[in-house]
Amino acid sequence: MIILGSSGSIGLNALNLAKEYNLKVDALACKSSLKVLNAQIEEFSPKLVYIDDDSLKPLVNHKFVFSKKDGIEKFLIACDEQSHGSKLINAFVGFDGLVPSVMALKLGFDLALANKESLVAGGQFLDCSKITPIDSEHFGLKFLLKDRPKLHRLIITASGGAFYGRDISSLKDASVEDALKHPNWNMGAKITIDSATMVNKLFEIIEAFWLYGCQNIEAYIERKSLIHALIEFKDGSTTAHISKPDMRLAIAHAIGLNNQRIIENLDIAKLQNITLEPIDLERYRAFSLKDNLLQNPQIGAIINAANDEIVAGFLSKKVKFNSISSAIFDALDRFFCFKLDSLESVIEINQKVREYIKHRYIS
Amino acid sequence: MIILGSSGSIGLNALNLAKEYNLKVDALACKSSLKVLNAQIEEFSPKLVYIDDDSLKPLVNHKFVFSKKDGIEKFLIACDEQSHGSKLINAFVGFDGLVPSVMALKLGFDLALANKESLVAGGQFLDCSKITPIDSEHFGLKFLLKDRPKLHRLIITASGGAFYGRDISSLKDASVEDALKHPNWNMGAKITIDSATMVNKLFEIIEAFWLYGCQNIEAYIERKSLIHALIEFKDGSTTAHISKPDMRLAIAHAIGLNNQRIIENLDIAKLQNITLEPIDLERYRAFSLKDNLLQNPQIGAIINAANDEIVAGFLSKKVKFNSISSAIFDALDRFFCFKLDSLESVIEINQKVREYIKHRYIS
Repeated sequence: MIILGSSGSIGLNALNLAKEYNLKVDALACKSSLKVLNAQIEEFSPKLVYIDDDSLKPLVNHKFVFSKKDGIEKFLIACDEQSHGSKLINAFVGFDGLVPSVMALKLGFDLALANKESLVAGGQFLDCSKITPIDSEHFGLKFLLKDRPKLHRLIITASGGAFYGRDISSLKDASVEDALKHPNWNMGAKITIDSATMVNKLFEIIEAFWLYGCQNIEAYIERKSLIHALIEFKDGSTTAHISKPDMRLAIAHAIGLNNQRIIENLDIAKLQNITLEPIDLERYRAFSLKDNLLQNPQIGAIINAANDEIVAGFLSKKVKFNSISSAIFDALDRFFCFKLDSLESVIEINQKVREYIKHRYIS
Repeated sequence: MIILGSSGSIGLNALNLAKEYNLKVDALACKSSLKVLNAQIEEFSPKLVYIDDDSLKPLVNHKFVFSKKDGIEKFLIACDEQSHGSKLINAFVGFDGLVPSVMALKLGFDLALANKESLVAGGQFLDCSKITPIDSEHFGLKFLLKDRPKLHRLIITASGGAFYGRDISSLKDASVEDALKHPNWNMGAKITIDSATMVNKLFEIIEAFWLYGCQNIEAYIERKSLIHALIEFKDGSTTAHISKPDMRLAIAHAIGLNNQRIIENLDIAKLQNITLEPIDLERYRAFSLKDNLLQNPQIGAIINAANDEIVAGFLSKKVKFNSISSAIFDALDRFFCFKLDSLESVIEINQKVREYIKHRYIS
């Protein structure tokens, strides 16, 4: 690669990465930082160097040095002869960065641009589709529009359900009516209870595993249900999907209405006081099964059957709220070893678990 | 499309969208909501219907009705004969949704899945790569991983710079030392001043215009510099790019290190009390040029030159902080009509503006 502005902060960072990942450095250019440039020559052995300050040219420890008098154009043409089409980072400061950008693209270099003025003052003279921006904002936009490095972790969010702030010791006496008060989504009774117990999120994690084939999945509580999912990428980037809580969005995509205006975008200024909290396993006991479930996804059939019956019992006021998680743990202990390798065996366990829960807890 | 569970909330929403966008409804199935089903038959004229409750079958106003006794399998086979490969929404509730999901995929339907239990209990029996999830979390993940509808607006964030909370009336007396105190990024003096005046964000907006060809661009203040960019899509989705503030990330991508672990992902629990605020044009006067600049991007050359010289004057304590925006407005008034259609004309205006600012404000 070629670095224009090698002694500045972008240049130094790029060279550190080049060293760490063993990337070839073809040429270096800077304005007047003689000492830094000589040290970089020593370390990276570039084929060509440029120093803007003519008076410093004789002091640069290199056979092929260009300076202002030669012109940056001549330097870039020499770079092109040596390393045609290579990556060129333009991290020059100020308006003087514009002409090198225009020329780099003309010569066919792969331009990575940290020089703002190239676009601010001369965007109309650059083929911007060929530019990789070095700037956290424009990198962010590019990441959201185009890039996708390796996955690290999937994150889904949970509202926390009806009992988010309630005293944990009082959960055992929680009434059906209280459990049905979901803060954000207006849903059926069963799923609203699953939201209060966090079993719904346990299910969504196993769904995400099957849908996206990733075993590193976590859930966080986001009380306002405005951030629905996040993805952590290996490079250190994280992305988030944000919208008003409205199921029509997911449905519209599922039926091919991807490019219609389905709902208004969330007013971004309303994204206030958002927090993402880890899930408290004392409050949401069933969620402690997450890692077990991700390791053994087939036990979803057992948890689902036990939960279905015990929630029905809770809704008909035959069991207490805390029995929901207890019954799930109990069913898992009892049926964990059951072999679930065919659809028939899953249909069978579904029956067996339901009978067990009904018999043991409800009737 | 075919809807299993047409009387539930997902089914009703899907039918509303079908009506609004004039999508064909091939078949409807529900458990026992006779009245709703008959109204839907009247409105959407499906070719086939299914009602789970056998006793209600004679009361359904349709020639081709299936019920539990016939079996959902027989219904799906008939659907396949009528509308092979069409979109099938499985919004059945509970474990009974699993077998229809397995069968829908086997018959080659395009499965949109709202039935959680299909994956929770039987994910191992489904070709999950063929499923479109209907669920805000999994839709969110899919959106972040795969989908990309039409762009609506690009948003970049600003830290607010050194004078974010300062009394506006005192800005005219702000010292160089104060202006250099940037909250999050450790940068050079010039860009730190541009951050305090918001001129830096004005520049980044014009850069984003050139890079991504979108004229609908906004900036919001996010004080912690953890969210760098957001994209609003036409459907109502918004995405965000989140990371620790570390330039190595953008540089690494620019030099091809896309799939390395460059920095740690931000601990998502640290995403606390984030707010995105519109930019106050009284405090950040120069930012009022944004729309003008997006309409006339070539004037970036004028703003850049004026800003460069006046900031140099401020840094050498020859002009006051408020003169920065005044000088930019002044230069624009004076040079706006200058034709900037060649690189040479931009290089010329760059000189002229600088001379004017130096002469008028500094010397």
